[in-house]
Amino acid sequence: MSLIHPDFLLHNAVGRRLFHEIASQFPIIDYHNHLDPTMLADNRAFTDLTELWINPDPYKHRAMRIHGIPERGITGEATNREKFENWAATVPATWGNPLFHWNALELQRHFGIDTVLTPATAGEIWDRATDQLGDERFRPLRILNDLGVITVCTSDDLLSDVSRHRRATRQRMVDVYPSLRGDSIVDVTSASFHGWLNELSAATNLEITDLESYLAAVDRRLDAFAAAGCVLADHALDSGFHFTEPSEQRAAKSFLAILHGEVPAEDWERNLRDYLLVALGRRYADRGWGLQLHVGAQRRTSARLRKLAGGAGGYASIGSPADITSIAALLDTIERGGGLPDIILYTLNPADNAAFGSLTGSFAEDGRPGKVQFGPAWWYNDQLSGIREHLDTVASYGLLHHWIGMTTDSRSLLSFCRHEYFRRILCNLLGEWVQRERLPPDGPWLDAAVMNICYSNARRWLANKTPTHAQ
Amino acid sequence: MSLIHPDFLLHNAVGRRLFHEIASQFPIIDYHNHLDPTMLADNRAFTDLTELWINPDPYKHRAMRIHGIPERGITGEATNREKFENWAATVPATWGNPLFHWNALELQRHFGIDTVLTPATAGEIWDRATDQLGDERFRPLRILNDLGVITVCTSDDLLSDVSRHRRATRQRMVDVYPSLRGDSIVDVTSASFHGWLNELSAATNLEITDLESYLAAVDRRLDAFAAAGCVLADHALDSGFHFTEPSEQRAAKSFLAILHGEVPAEDWERNLRDYLLVALGRRYADRGWGLQLHVGAQRRTSARLRKLAGGAGGYASIGSPADITSIAALLDTIERGGGLPDIILYTLNPADNAAFGSLTGSFAEDGRPGKVQFGPAWWYNDQLSGIREHLDTVASYGLLHHWIGMTTDSRSLLSFCRHEYFRRILCNLLGEWVQRERLPPDGPWLDAAVMNICYSNARRWLANKTPTHAQ
Amino acid sequence: MSLIHPDFLLHNAVGRRLFHEIASQFPIIDYHNHLDPTMLADNRAFTDLTELWINPDPYKHRAMRIHGIPERGITGEATNREKFENWAATVPATWGNPLFHWNALELQRHFGIDTVLTPATAGEIWDRATDQLGDERFRPLRILNDLGVITVCTSDDLLSDVSRHRRATRQRMVDVYPSLRGDSIVDVTSASFHGWLNELSAATNLEITDLESYLAAVDRRLDAFAAAGCVLADHALDSGFHFTEPSEQRAAKSFLAILHGEVPAEDWERNLRDYLLVALGRRYADRGWGLQLHVGAQRRTSARLRKLAGGAGGYASIGSPADITSIAALLDTIERGGGLPDIILYTLNPADNAAFGSLTGSFAEDGRPGKVQFGPAWWYNDQLSGIREHLDTVASYGLLHHWIGMTTDSRSLLSFCRHEYFRRILCNLLGEWVQRERLPPDGPWLDAAVMNICYSNARRWLANKTPTHAQ
Repeated sequence: MSLIHPDFLLHNAVGRRLFHEIASQFPIIDYHNHLDPTMLADNRAFTDLTELWINPDPYKHRAMRIHGIPERGITGEATNREKFENWAATVPATWGNPLFHWNALELQRHFGIDTVLTPATAGEIWDRATDQLGDERFRPLRILNDLGVITVCTSDDLLSDVSRHRRATRQRMVDVYPSLRGDSIVDVTSASFHGWLNELSAATNLEITDLESYLAAVDRRLDAFAAAGCVLADHALDSGFHFTEPSEQRAAKSFLAILHGEVPAEDWERNLRDYLLVALGRRYADRGWGLQLHVGAQRRTSARLRKLAGGAGGYASIGSPADITSIAALLDTIERGGGLPDIILYTLNPADNAAFGSLTGSFAEDGRPGKVQFGPAWWYNDQLSGIREHLDTVASYGLLHHWIGMTTDSRSLLSFCRHEYFRRILCNLLGEWVQRERLPPDGPWLDAAVMNICYSNARRWLANKTPTHAQ
Repeated sequence: MSLIHPDFLLHNAVGRRLFHEIASQFPIIDYHNHLDPTMLADNRAFTDLTELWINPDPYKHRAMRIHGIPERGITGEATNREKFENWAATVPATWGNPLFHWNALELQRHFGIDTVLTPATAGEIWDRATDQLGDERFRPLRILNDLGVITVCTSDDLLSDVSRHRRATRQRMVDVYPSLRGDSIVDVTSASFHGWLNELSAATNLEITDLESYLAAVDRRLDAFAAAGCVLADHALDSGFHFTEPSEQRAAKSFLAILHGEVPAEDWERNLRDYLLVALGRRYADRGWGLQLHVGAQRRTSARLRKLAGGAGGYASIGSPADITSIAALLDTIERGGGLPDIILYTLNPADNAAFGSLTGSFAEDGRPGKVQFGPAWWYNDQLSGIREHLDTVASYGLLHHWIGMTTDSRSLLSFCRHEYFRRILCNLLGEWVQRERLPPDGPWLDAAVMNICYSNARRWLANKTPTHAQ
Repeated sequence: MSLIHPDFLLHNAVGRRLFHEIASQFPIIDYHNHLDPTMLADNRAFTDLTELWINPDPYKHRAMRIHGIPERGITGEATNREKFENWAATVPATWGNPLFHWNALELQRHFGIDTVLTPATAGEIWDRATDQLGDERFRPLRILNDLGVITVCTSDDLLSDVSRHRRATRQRMVDVYPSLRGDSIVDVTSASFHGWLNELSAATNLEITDLESYLAAVDRRLDAFAAAGCVLADHALDSGFHFTEPSEQRAAKSFLAILHGEVPAEDWERNLRDYLLVALGRRYADRGWGLQLHVGAQRRTSARLRKLAGGAGGYASIGSPADITSIAALLDTIERGGGLPDIILYTLNPADNAAFGSLTGSFAEDGRPGKVQFGPAWWYNDQLSGIREHLDTVASYGLLHHWIGMTTDSRSLLSFCRHEYFRRILCNLLGEWVQRERLPPDGPWLDAAVMNICYSNARRWLANKTPTHAQ
């Protein structure tokens, strides 16, 4: 029997029923990922399996490194065929890791390949996959469409060209919306900030001479995003993030100093960043957007790997538990300023799970169910044990009924079958909970619950927001 | 079959035997809760179900907020009937959360109602409950007595009138003792401190002119508490608590400054607080009391909700993991000063579980089994998964045999059936452990173990302390 | 049936097969422990059961304290017989704690005793054990040899006499190597540092006049360790450890100040410590050694117990979660200086598990599988639940396939049967994972996996390193 059989991971009758009758029937809304909008808009075929499947997947790179594969054969100048073979050599060592399951699922769902990838089967699998890659089915939008994906929100810098999302959407296979990755707006001391600022000025036809005109230029781009269907922003609050209520006056001074090429003191710089986070939060709320906070990544680990593999090369680690006082104060400060946008919290450190789960009950808005979400098990936590723990947390410390459900956060087209993986784990766990009396007996209420988590909650959460529709 | 059937949550033979033969047979000692002593002393009937069941339960308010119920209909000016209906609308969305089980258990045990509360059944349930509320069975002390509660320790400010506890106890249904909530003693920079100090002075007939006379006045009230049967104090060490060994001299100066309306520097203020914690710890030890430390709440989240719903309105969240070095240093400093009171540690962040579990072996006293307790799964952790994890922690990192067991920490009379909930989870887990050979086969030793955890350990722990009996 | 029967803790067919056919067949490499090399070299018999079994085991002391045994009867002047009886009184209260299982396993495997130790059986067990203690089987090296232990790496100060390890090894029962406990090298402000420095100078015939000559003397001892077969160093990074990239110039100045009896400012002192950690890390890398980092112990708890029971008396607790940014920066700084030694990370706080698991993918070296290890569940986490969680973490966040497996970290000879305990838990869990489809069906791949984890990975990891062989 193939590893990926119809009842894969479904070990109880209720779970099997829920998956086959309900969960698998609903389309996929992937509200946060890192797909390349140009790739989607151009909808071009891929040249080989490595370009489609390995190069855009830092999870695989990471496992190959642990397996001892030289960096040259991961992200370096080795050929795509060599990189594929290096991955094939690594797969048999990934048992127990989500990559083993994902790998099998991806080969099965997209290529109909049930053979486990190993050095012995690598040649055959390369050939079978290559034979299919020219097929229309392997155009980016078809890959998504065939999996049932109806909406994707990509993650885009403020200066990104959002016409690409329209171009992709017009092909009538998947609705592609930009979502704003706001980090470059607040990262005022990065080496690239001045150049970015000049581009912002050029893109908006606004002279940026102080904090006020900066925010005016930002506003103009936010409007452009909104016009392209954006209803979500997100910010990375990396490991070590602390927030203190900012002073506008000091922020304005720091911004001027930076404009003039000066370097503000560290606490002034932090004040400016905190000021911008609050100012942006209010702007998102004004536009009816949601705000995603990705908390706790430790992105700076090996400088050597950063140089070799780039900023998102799969060597990041999980940072220390979050400073919850800071998260709460950030949300409170935005709320006091006139209203909080709907929030999705993510944490990379599962030691934060209970704390983040409890924050979903700490802010609220009349008539807005599930206003603050503890988003899905993020990044390295998006695996069998991590998802189960995450679901337990959301249920125990909040209301799973209103939970927004899965998104991939992925850079790789083939990884959208992780929605199927998630749904199997969800249905199996709910079935277990029925058996253990954590839940009442199976019934229509449970169908509704599964539908909510797999589809309706995300749909409603996004639909609540769309201020203008771009198409 | 009703959700709450005799073998609810008991999925193995040993667990069923333990619950029915042992755990359910023992009375309940609830050594820490927030019941209103006036309510107990007056022992008055309730006007309606909302007054009894919803208004005093911030857990329900929290869930209603997540469900999107407007605050007006939770803690605002809506009628009690409306609030009940809002709760009924929320209940079907609470599956998987402890509230769903508690709700069913509370309706079943107190009103004999097996119907699940929903908008459709709300009217019928309101009527059936209202019909019973006038009954003597729904007087506060009878509610407790009927559940098998024999002792409750309420949580009282130093200035609280402890004659109410005597008045309640004299009605010979439940022993009601005060326990000291010591926060206002150390919260020297709160806006209300000066007023509170005047009241303390008046209550003790002592002029408070410096730190020494302050502590003399505190001592007088501690004696009054002791005379009323108090054997426990507790302090909240909220998220962000840090301790450094305090200087008495600086503490005395800071106190004088505060008396004179000045605001000491932040580190001087912290020194004073730390000094007072140590000074109080020694006083508790001298009197043979136990000291409870409630660590890690993040009480300041939404200022908006704080204003609308008050200081304990259910919007608190779980703070960051505790600073264990500080907890250890606080206990060590008290111990070095002449002896440590018996300790019950609580943490709101379950990421602290192992660390707190291990602290039970870091301080000890000759002839004092279980001197340092890692108290029950606290607040948001008091649920199916949280309790199981907590029991595993106490067993793995300490000795479950000597564990003090469950207390509700509740503000709501009807929530004392959570002791039953706890006992079911306990017995079921011990049965599982027997099956998995974590424990030796079932036998009389296990009966003794369950008796210890459900009753005898708490009884002994309190009995060790009672210096004087108030009745 | 005895608690310790052949299928103890093996509750599925795959697990039973794996344990009996594979795991139990492989010898034991214990790459980190605190056995006394003199005891091993002298290989002398023990006078009684307490000397062999209770005095060197702080876990037992800790449980006895929680049980209320007076310190006199634990580490004080009570007789060994009394101490044994105190332990016997404690055992029945340890159910659910690993001590209960370990106790049974140790009596069974070494003395053939299946009786549970209680006050009632204490006399009989004392006599039966005493009868056997004179036997050759109870010489230290035979105890290890009979359990299948082929290699032990003890933990030794830089000044330790490493000829003892050779003396032990020459008896051809167990290979005994020193590993370097490097704490005294960096603990430059300890009261004993000046005395230690004089000894170092004497031992190396080098005058120590500045940082450079200090490191030259250290180098000489590192060479002596290498010549004795040392391939591993370790450092304790206790709770509260923070790292910032050090300045050599400031470090040199601080060292001179310390030499002259001055006390550098706290941040200068930390800079020196961080400098030494990096300098040592590079030296370990140059020699091809591995570096173990034991993170997160809170060793200072009760000063009273420290005084009574010594520095390793079993009253340590688990510290706060680690500062991951600091761990990553330490490794990065070493790597940037010319190369990272192979690393084994340990954390005492299981809330760090995911973060530490993820760090295994954050640094890498071409051709070096499993370069960064998240070592076994450490100290208080080395128990049934802790090991299961740990294995899940390593698999979910890294590659279990390359994992280095169990070591005891023990001070007690009889505790090496914890390897058997670990192997049972491992095999049982892998069997469960097969049942739940986390793993593919049983097959030769799984045999290889178990062999890797129980033996081959540790063997390869050590063999990669041995620059010179001492025998």
